[in-house]
Amino acid sequence: MSFLAYDKNSDYSYTLGAYPTIELLKNRPDLALRIFTRAKFYKSEGYKIVRNLAKKPKVTIEQNEHFVERVSTKENCLVATAFKKFESSLHTSENHLVLINSKDAGNLGTITRNMLAFGITNLAIVKPAVDIFNPETVRASMGAIFGLKIKYFENVEDYTKSLREDRNLYPFLTTGEKLLSEVQFKNPFSLIFGNESSGLGNEFKNCKNTIRIPQSKKVDSLNIAVSVGIALYQVYSSKDRDPIQYLPNT
Amino acid sequence: MSFLAYDKNSDYSYTLGAYPTIELLKNRPDLALRIFTRAKFYKSEGYKIVRNLAKKPKVTIEQNEHFVERVSTKENCLVATAFKKFESSLHTSENHLVLINSKDAGNLGTITRNMLAFGITNLAIVKPAVDIFNPETVRASMGAIFGLKIKYFENVEDYTKSLREDRNLYPFLTTGEKLLSEVQFKNPFSLIFGNESSGLGNEFKNCKNTIRIPQSKKVDSLNIAVSVGIALYQVYSSKDRDPIQYLPNT
Repeated sequence: MSFLAYDKNSDYSYTLGAYPTIELLKNRPDLALRIFTRAKFYKSEGYKIVRNLAKKPKVTIEQNEHFVERVSTKENCLVATAFKKFESSLHTSENHLVLINSKDAGNLGTITRNMLAFGITNLAIVKPAVDIFNPETVRASMGAIFGLKIKYFENVEDYTKSLREDRNLYPFLTTGEKLLSEVQFKNPFSLIFGNESSGLGNEFKNCKNTIRIPQSKKVDSLNIAVSVGIALYQVYSSKDRDPIQYLPNT
Repeated sequence: MSFLAYDKNSDYSYTLGAYPTIELLKNRPDLALRIFTRAKFYKSEGYKIVRNLAKKPKVTIEQNEHFVERVSTKENCLVATAFKKFESSLHTSENHLVLINSKDAGNLGTITRNMLAFGITNLAIVKPAVDIFNPETVRASMGAIFGLKIKYFENVEDYTKSLREDRNLYPFLTTGEKLLSEVQFKNPFSLIFGNESSGLGNEFKNCKNTIRIPQSKKVDSLNIAVSVGIALYQVYSSKDRDPIQYLPNT
């Protein structure tokens, strides 16, 4: 198999840097295809960890200065690992995060870190949307994507058709009816976010259970990754105990 | 006065795009020096607003395709406004956000949006730190910096020496003693954050009132702008009413 620079239409992508490479090898060694390194990497702490993790799944480590430089977008990247893109069905009885019209690669990566931090591990991405396997997103995620179930949907209807009847939908809007801190979330639920420039479309404005994050009118909106972080934090801290003790995925 | 491409040592910077330009003209018209535009800008909605806001402070609007292209880092920027950099003393009886060793321009901008959204308008930046007037930060802030008091400090001691005795310090650490949701914040207070790769230094580990945001051990840490957003949200929502009603700066 020969590898080329990242292309959103190809079936593989790259982790850039030691941290996301380690997360890949720890959580989804089945996806790792080949590890490309620069000579400098062999002197780092990260190398020892990567070498050990690569043994069992037998992933080849290949020194290739030119290739690492070519696939990495930032300087000082010493390791880039090719991995198979993946999609998986979402769990029908677990809680979901739903992103509609997600536009920014960095924000999407940051959102996946929020999800892993607060134990919601099913991500529905409704198109149009940025590519979650873009190496820039994988980098911003710090490898968190390898701990998630991720599925793309063509439109909102395709997503809602995939759900069981007992699911509760909670759309987030700046004009939402209830304050986030007052909501009693009922499992299984889906937290639904639009993007920060246009929010959620009209199909959600008249839904029940719309939620707003209280904020001053001095800003148009919060950054979308911040909004999702606040929502996930509130869901878990509202249970009156330290989530670290009860998160199913800790 | 002649204008050059952005330089962190010069005493002026640029807002890139209509939104931060409008925030500048609305909130700090005294800082605006000159508005540079591309021809396409005159057809936009933003132009009408900018033109009206520029009248009273008598800011010149100059069409200069080449200059706008030169100072803007992203494509499709139609307006760039030169403004005087500013620093101001922080208010000794108001609440502060303190950022130590802030490294990322985009995150710093997002943090200023969080501050304005949750009504904390005094920002202490302890060096080393990125430049808050970098046009990229101003863009990520969506112009929120023009609603804040901002002051740089050489080190932590310089900041703490500037404070009255009745101030309460709350350092945020992943190993913090109290859960965020359990803290009763006492005015006037300072919320203190390090950066996401190294956190706060040892001088804070033995402080009283250290706080942690509960999160799974599956991630190393949250993104710093997300952490600050969650903290500011919790401070205001813990007062059992809609902050929109009582924020002093709404």
